Amino acid sequence: MKIRQLFDYETWTYTYLLWDETTKEAAVIDSVLEQVDRDMQHIEELGLNVKYLLETHIHADHITGAGPIRKRTGAKIAVHSKSGSECADILTNDGDIFKLGEQEIKVMYTPGHTDNDSTYLIDGAAFTGDTLLVRDCGRTDFQLGSNENMYHSLTEKLFTLPEETLVFPAHDYKGFTQSTIGEEKQFNTRAGNGKAFEDFSTIMDNLNLPNPKRIDISVPGNLQCGDLDN
Amino acid sequence: MKIRQLFDYETWTYTYLLWDETTKEAAVIDSVLEQVDRDMQHIEELGLNVKYLLETHIHADHITGAGPIRKRTGAKIAVHSKSGSECADILTNDGDIFKLGEQEIKVMYTPGHTDNDSTYLIDGAAFTGDTLLVRDCGRTDFQLGSNENMYHSLTEKLFTLPEETLVFPAHDYKGFTQSTIGEEKQFNTRAGNGKAFEDFSTIMDNLNLPNPKRIDISVPGNLQCGDLDN
Repeated sequence: MKIRQLFDYETWTYTYLLWDETTKEAAVIDSVLEQVDRDMQHIEELGLNVKYLLETHIHADHITGAGPIRKRTGAKIAVHSKSGSECADILTNDGDIFKLGEQEIKVMYTPGHTDNDSTYLIDGAAFTGDTLLVRDCGRTDFQLGSNENMYHSLTEKLFTLPEETLVFPAHDYKGFTQSTIGEEKQFNTRAGNGKAFEDFSTIMDNLNLPNPKRIDISVPGNLQCGDLDN
Repeated sequence: MKIRQLFDYETWTYTYLLWDETTKEAAVIDSVLEQVDRDMQHIEELGLNVKYLLETHIHADHITGAGPIRKRTGAKIAVHSKSGSECADILTNDGDIFKLGEQEIKVMYTPGHTDNDSTYLIDGAAFTGDTLLVRDCGRTDFQLGSNENMYHSLTEKLFTLPEETLVFPAHDYKGFTQSTIGEEKQFNTRAGNGKAFEDFSTIMDNLNLPNPKRIDISVPGNLQCGDLDN
């Protein structure tokens, strides 16, 4: 599977383009509305046939470009069944598989940042959304986030993947672009190095983060799949 | 060779960490002064022994972190012989090779943005500095930049590499993180698709870009290798 990482400077969001080199069947993970033209040009130049628009969760910090890309490609939008999305074509559950040619993308349910977080797994890489970030993890204080779920998703699910698995997050605020499961098990500042749940929870309860600036427009916009003119 | 791409948000600069997995010998390409602590922590966590600090050229838009990293690791700073650098340990020329364990990094002289641009080649990837950018190329209007040199470096040197070679630029302003030689030969907006030199030169002569904000401190700072307190 080929991987192309793209960055949205305004919202610090990583979008991923995945494709099977043989068939050119492709998926886009976490597109950003303002970058649809950029992404579509890239998709066309690479000669890709986009089949799936995969959301790691209902985002609070940017509006997805999935709806507009669906209109231009006919691809199907997928998000976890707990999201309550009425605009997605496919509501996913843990273990679901998407095929691009002979390549597979597997859904791993990894809630904690919200109640509807999916990690997308391919051979050798995990696209971890806002659950596992490089040396960090997503906040847990809104959208049905939960310290218990986050700790379980990190330590019992993601950290049990092979250590060499590449980690591709949905955001990074320090300039990291990727990591590995082995590194995060050891160096993740929230849950790495065997940190106990109580210590993890104390960290999470004292982050004192402001609400995302765009939460009031992002969540409803994402529940429309970014089709704001509907 | 393992590759880790790092981003400096303020100057849109990509820094690259390369290492040989067997020996942990490493090189850093185009570090940024303000990111030295981040990079050193990453280097220490990954257990790397930094041997070389490679500059693609004397930058005008940020100050290198090479000097401070040299002090903390003992690594040697390398930049092209035409740079006039008096702080570098190694002045390079086309064809020079750096070894990390059994892996090789080869210098390809690719002037045009300045008179001292090097591309660093490893098996399967080219770190192209400000010469070849994704769908773009560096400006040619200061620091002994030259349309003739840029066109020659792009079309006669870089575009002759194997098409599947990954391209890792020193900057990107649209959120691209990488490309391939095949894509750039076809889709580069400045010199791709067989564009004639005269057309390339007309584009370059009409960019009307402002001078980099930090040029007055960056160039002298880089001629000190970022050791500003010397």
